[in-house]
Amino acid sequence: MASASVETTAVLTATDVADVIRVVGIDQFMDDVIDGVRCAAEDLNPETTMTIERAGFQYEKPCLGLVEWMPSMELGRAVGIKTVGYHPSNPNQRGLPSVMATTSIHDTGTGRLIALVDATLLTAIRTGAASAVVTDILARPDSSTLALIGCGAQSVTQAHAISRVRPITRVLAFDADPLVAESLADRLPFAVQVEVMNSADEAASQADIICTATTVDIGAGPVISEAALLRPGVHINAVGADFPGKTELPMSVLKSALVVPDEVSQCLKEGESQQLAPSDLGPDLPALVQAAADHADHRNGLTIFDSTGWSLEDLIAAEIVLEHALHHEIGIHTELQHTPADPYNPYELL
Amino acid sequence: MASASVETTAVLTATDVADVIRVVGIDQFMDDVIDGVRCAAEDLNPETTMTIERAGFQYEKPCLGLVEWMPSMELGRAVGIKTVGYHPSNPNQRGLPSVMATTSIHDTGTGRLIALVDATLLTAIRTGAASAVVTDILARPDSSTLALIGCGAQSVTQAHAISRVRPITRVLAFDADPLVAESLADRLPFAVQVEVMNSADEAASQADIICTATTVDIGAGPVISEAALLRPGVHINAVGADFPGKTELPMSVLKSALVVPDEVSQCLKEGESQQLAPSDLGPDLPALVQAAADHADHRNGLTIFDSTGWSLEDLIAAEIVLEHALHHEIGIHTELQHTPADPYNPYELL
Repeated sequence: MASASVETTAVLTATDVADVIRVVGIDQFMDDVIDGVRCAAEDLNPETTMTIERAGFQYEKPCLGLVEWMPSMELGRAVGIKTVGYHPSNPNQRGLPSVMATTSIHDTGTGRLIALVDATLLTAIRTGAASAVVTDILARPDSSTLALIGCGAQSVTQAHAISRVRPITRVLAFDADPLVAESLADRLPFAVQVEVMNSADEAASQADIICTATTVDIGAGPVISEAALLRPGVHINAVGADFPGKTELPMSVLKSALVVPDEVSQCLKEGESQQLAPSDLGPDLPALVQAAADHADHRNGLTIFDSTGWSLEDLIAAEIVLEHALHHEIGIHTELQHTPADPYNPYELL
Repeated sequence: MASASVETTAVLTATDVADVIRVVGIDQFMDDVIDGVRCAAEDLNPETTMTIERAGFQYEKPCLGLVEWMPSMELGRAVGIKTVGYHPSNPNQRGLPSVMATTSIHDTGTGRLIALVDATLLTAIRTGAASAVVTDILARPDSSTLALIGCGAQSVTQAHAISRVRPITRVLAFDADPLVAESLADRLPFAVQVEVMNSADEAASQADIICTATTVDIGAGPVISEAALLRPGVHINAVGADFPGKTELPMSVLKSALVVPDEVSQCLKEGESQQLAPSDLGPDLPALVQAAADHADHRNGLTIFDSTGWSLEDLIAAEIVLEHALHHEIGIHTELQHTPADPYNPYELL
């Protein structure tokens, strides 16, 4: 894909990423990331594509949060490492996004840093794109009503991505904070009717597709109750569970559904699948995409995408941005790493 | 330590790092990093300082190499993540350093990226500094002859750092490539007599302190033979072993010495300690520093520092640079991560 200059590192700020997306067009960009994730899953070769389960520091002081890293490699091309800060109190207490991230891209031929890309928006977009890939396989073709449980930043890209693969005409919005649900309509980048609901169950029970993307506290889930009367063929993208003890769906729903984890070991630790045994799980994201036709009959049953974030999605999204940034000369291109006259002299620049 | 602006990310290139070091003075800067590593080891509180063993992708195509990450956290202050590329064929085949690295510093209160610092020079400096901390405890006070086995970039900072804690007047240089040994004198930042030796054993047998920092191939070690007649009180800083199967010291030397690993589990996997059982190891770097006086009698015996790189050293070195860079307004200070008017609107910038 993108071939950066051997000598410079591209530093792409949030504004640069937005400039790239504006040049490409926001719908086209989302379609490109959806295609990128689908193709990566379809073509996955474990000999050359490697991901390492994310790891990180979790803490409760100065506030509940974590900083973690998500590495992936396309052998012979690049290593991508996304570092993510997740601090659920950021929006309310500091006016910052709860998820802030950057992705670094390293050349596997030299170890040089090719690019550092702000990945805050890209994380939201690739998470939406992954839901769209699974939704496109497992939701009924005529699905038109989408329930959003949790109406923060992630819900915007969930709705946008899903609108690219299904004819969504109606969005049912519920958030624990009614003001957040009420502001959703102004934040969606496509024309759709938005109705604010009084409860998660009310929204969920009328939907063809549900996305849960909440900041529910650890141990406080589920956000949809056992009593919710879901439609028979509903597809659920469960996006919010990303912490041991944080879950959004009730056991009865999980037990009666085909559950597709994005990354099995991560989902068993941090996703909805924490509540399940490995034998309860369906195919993972790559296996689903590779046998999409075989799973078409699941469209009439209850299906769940357990999305914890697959590190390869981050490398794909960052590389798409980098390619356009190089082509359009967007961003800072700096000699971050010195190419020495004498590689044996560390003090050469002094 | 450094308190960056809440809103900007400092991007410090190799040139910026060199500018900082020039302002501080190279000797003072080395002393500051030595002090920083010593204090971090002395004050280590496992409740608030955490390091995670490095992990990475190792590969043999397109060339032998690895990209790995080394995370550390000072709780309530910062997470540091150094990403390192190690490609031993870089100097000969591409005119690049074999080790290229960057360190990112993240605010543990918000997850925001505070700084990205080129760490290629800093890695060499902090590795030298760690050797100096241990040498200062375990080498005889009158040690004046230093053998450098392997005379690449790392040997320069080993010699420089050790010259800050011991009265080094004579350097014995051996490298598998005689041209590299011959050019060493021009690369050392302090006045000293340099003699090129014909073999590693010849250099090692005349030295009070030895530093091994070679790119010996996996399985091809040791670089000092079993037959080398070492002085009784010699202290060895073994720096080169950083890959499973790569070792520099012979078993007889390891078995008869006090071996101080910097990070036990890493050393058992990648360091000289690969050749040893956990019960063969002495105190690790923090334990040694915390009980320095108790170990003074080891100065008369054979001692070895097994240095694989401790991730906290990287955070310390990067924070020292960042503090000066903010004070002197060195580097690029960019709004890498957007502070949104509405944290719930990921598309705000579009």
